[in-house]
Amino acid sequence: MTNTDTIAAISTPAGTGGIAVARISGPAAIAIADAIWQGLPLSHAKSHTAHYGSVMDSDGGELDQAVATVFRAPASFTGEDTVEISTHGSAYVQREILNSLIKAGARMAEAGEFTRRAFANGKLDLAQAEAVADVIASQSREANRIAISQMRGQFSSRLQQLRDQLLQLASLLELELDFSEEDVEFASREALLQIARQVKAEVERLSESFRTGSAIKNGIPVAIIGATNAGKSSLLNALLGDDRAIVSDIHGTTRDIVEDTITIGGYTFRLMDTAGLRQTSDTIENLGIQRSVSAASNAHIIIALIDGSNPTLPQTPPTTASVIWAWNKTDQFPPTAASTDTIDCAISAKTGSGIERLKALLADTAAREAASHAGEILITNARHHQALLQSSQSITRVIQALEANISGDLISIDLRLTIDHLSSILGQITTPEILQSIFTRFCIGK
Amino acid sequence: MTNTDTIAAISTPAGTGGIAVARISGPAAIAIADAIWQGLPLSHAKSHTAHYGSVMDSDGGELDQAVATVFRAPASFTGEDTVEISTHGSAYVQREILNSLIKAGARMAEAGEFTRRAFANGKLDLAQAEAVADVIASQSREANRIAISQMRGQFSSRLQQLRDQLLQLASLLELELDFSEEDVEFASREALLQIARQVKAEVERLSESFRTGSAIKNGIPVAIIGATNAGKSSLLNALLGDDRAIVSDIHGTTRDIVEDTITIGGYTFRLMDTAGLRQTSDTIENLGIQRSVSAASNAHIIIALIDGSNPTLPQTPPTTASVIWAWNKTDQFPPTAASTDTIDCAISAKTGSGIERLKALLADTAAREAASHAGEILITNARHHQALLQSSQSITRVIQALEANISGDLISIDLRLTIDHLSSILGQITTPEILQSIFTRFCIGK
Repeated sequence: MTNTDTIAAISTPAGTGGIAVARISGPAAIAIADAIWQGLPLSHAKSHTAHYGSVMDSDGGELDQAVATVFRAPASFTGEDTVEISTHGSAYVQREILNSLIKAGARMAEAGEFTRRAFANGKLDLAQAEAVADVIASQSREANRIAISQMRGQFSSRLQQLRDQLLQLASLLELELDFSEEDVEFASREALLQIARQVKAEVERLSESFRTGSAIKNGIPVAIIGATNAGKSSLLNALLGDDRAIVSDIHGTTRDIVEDTITIGGYTFRLMDTAGLRQTSDTIENLGIQRSVSAASNAHIIIALIDGSNPTLPQTPPTTASVIWAWNKTDQFPPTAASTDTIDCAISAKTGSGIERLKALLADTAAREAASHAGEILITNARHHQALLQSSQSITRVIQALEANISGDLISIDLRLTIDHLSSILGQITTPEILQSIFTRFCIGK
Repeated sequence: MTNTDTIAAISTPAGTGGIAVARISGPAAIAIADAIWQGLPLSHAKSHTAHYGSVMDSDGGELDQAVATVFRAPASFTGEDTVEISTHGSAYVQREILNSLIKAGARMAEAGEFTRRAFANGKLDLAQAEAVADVIASQSREANRIAISQMRGQFSSRLQQLRDQLLQLASLLELELDFSEEDVEFASREALLQIARQVKAEVERLSESFRTGSAIKNGIPVAIIGATNAGKSSLLNALLGDDRAIVSDIHGTTRDIVEDTITIGGYTFRLMDTAGLRQTSDTIENLGIQRSVSAASNAHIIIALIDGSNPTLPQTPPTTASVIWAWNKTDQFPPTAASTDTIDCAISAKTGSGIERLKALLADTAAREAASHAGEILITNARHHQALLQSSQSITRVIQALEANISGDLISIDLRLTIDHLSSILGQITTPEILQSIFTRFCIGK
């Protein structure tokens, strides 16, 4: 793909609305926009100025009255000459302005192609470009904040620092190699080790932040567990304010894991209603119970639901999750005196009493997990996580080699590998296939 | 409603996309935008300039990177200070930027409120404002062209001319009244009659254009008629390229009118599949047949379908519609020699053969109807049609009175009424209720 052609797309959401924006980027963007424009010629317009005029359809008739904003290279999102034409948001106008632009010489943009050009032109590195898609997909305040911080380049500059440290290490090692005949040691191995250990610690911290980061991005997994008929499905429905899960008096109603998301206090939660834990000969129910245990062990938060009518504490599976103990059925069975120390809240899924308190506990628990990473960079992208894990492995080998006093040229290979893995996150090393798989996940027009 | 407050809304279509635009209009628009803005203060920005910066969420954290474009009164769509902020099109960002703007002092805009302000500030008359909604709703080239022409003010200036002629008439009549004692006739009644007749002719021409105008706007009604089992439902499906209507070999399969739209050659057609015409004792089928006859009589175009396996010409109901005679089932029964003079096209709804030719005939027929109004203004709005019909009635009474040589003061009442009806179209005379009913049909953000 060369950037000698000019691309166009509707950048606003699909559908009918007050206004829609067609975006044109590339060397001929202004000339192509002018070809369908009546008003002040945009070729005479200064960068960052908006102009009122008319756009023409592909037959040369007046299509709509519009405002065109000109961004001249390199001061645009893509780094190329860009024109944004704001028209009325009719289905017909959106379709026809694209036809008209294509007739005038533009090519229909592929998914993510504007951002891909911004990356190709050095306006964004690859991690920042990926964050653009995350900003667009973000559903909650916290997911948005992580994405914005990554788009701003906080993660990138941290990686850049690590890369710089590793490059320094590499050059010291090479110096050692050049003069190896003379048996001169330019930097003490201990000093090199110290740098490598610092890098490893930070790479692993970033890698570990993926658990929290991806939970915030995709929804924090919350498993509702408890005995059959404790009211787990009723609680899911009460939290969602919706009839999502089937509710009945029959023990073992829920078998499949029923999942839905809810946003509370800036966090998105993936609530999972699970099969009640009990001894049963029903094969399907037993499969469901196995899945419950597995879901609970992957959850970050467990709501352990106590059936007020038959209050035995549910067993929580071995897990690092935070557990919220909730007593259900307060409408008929208020918490017993003995239970008050154990439970975190008392609810009635049926009447809705206590549900707001439970929501507040969920938000607090999520905020506590996030606070444990306060001020730190959280990673949210599986590709970055993979590359960090690989960096961690190769830097570990570097450390082992330094500790074993192995020759510098052998260490260099693993050092180079570590640098390459970190560089792949920023896109300094990449392949067309990787770029393709990243940008096809974008929407058209971005 | 006063325009002392500042309104805000997302103006782009609902949903997630590359970019979304929040629009703020009113005396405090720039100050409110600045309250959530980090970058060059927009209060320092010249009109029609775009600025890169960040928008803050309602907690003061960075929400997104954005481009803000400033339009200073009166050089904006609404005639007020306006800021358009282009953000990433995430659901969260769109929701939160509105929260943030409202916290900073804006009010959520009602449906159509930006356009209503443009009307209130004299940027558009009422007919032009209504055309804004028509532009947004337009689905086809021709519907778009009529709406654009009306938004541009072609219809309005024609109405203005008629109003001016009537005002001239009124002043001549009043002059006559002032000097009536002296029995002086300032303008010959014949000259007055001539003006009145000209106005009436033009009002009636505009009023009659509603048949074609509304058909182009809402879809040209096309009825498919023919004997049972002629293949009407198959033809509908073939034209739509979809399984819209139930098809079977059983006579009388279709009872309800099945309707769907298709756009061909810049025109939208409302295709109606009707019950086959036959003698039957089935009560529901007979109701369907009655509806078929009624639909056919309202259609602008009738496709009269001949069953190739049993070729009798279907009866077309008395109608002013254009009739396209189509022979069906050519895959098994090619047109007979006797039929070739009668039929316009031969098709097989089953194989699709001849369907493109039939589509071309539909487009030609629509173009012929439109061409009969070439260069004329077409009205598309039922409110305008109603007002024109009322103008026509009152100007007719004016003409009758002038012909009967009735005194000027009696004529003046009807003349005033005619002017008022025309003025109501432009919104020079209006009520809050009329405005409410017009603008609530708009989308939010326009």
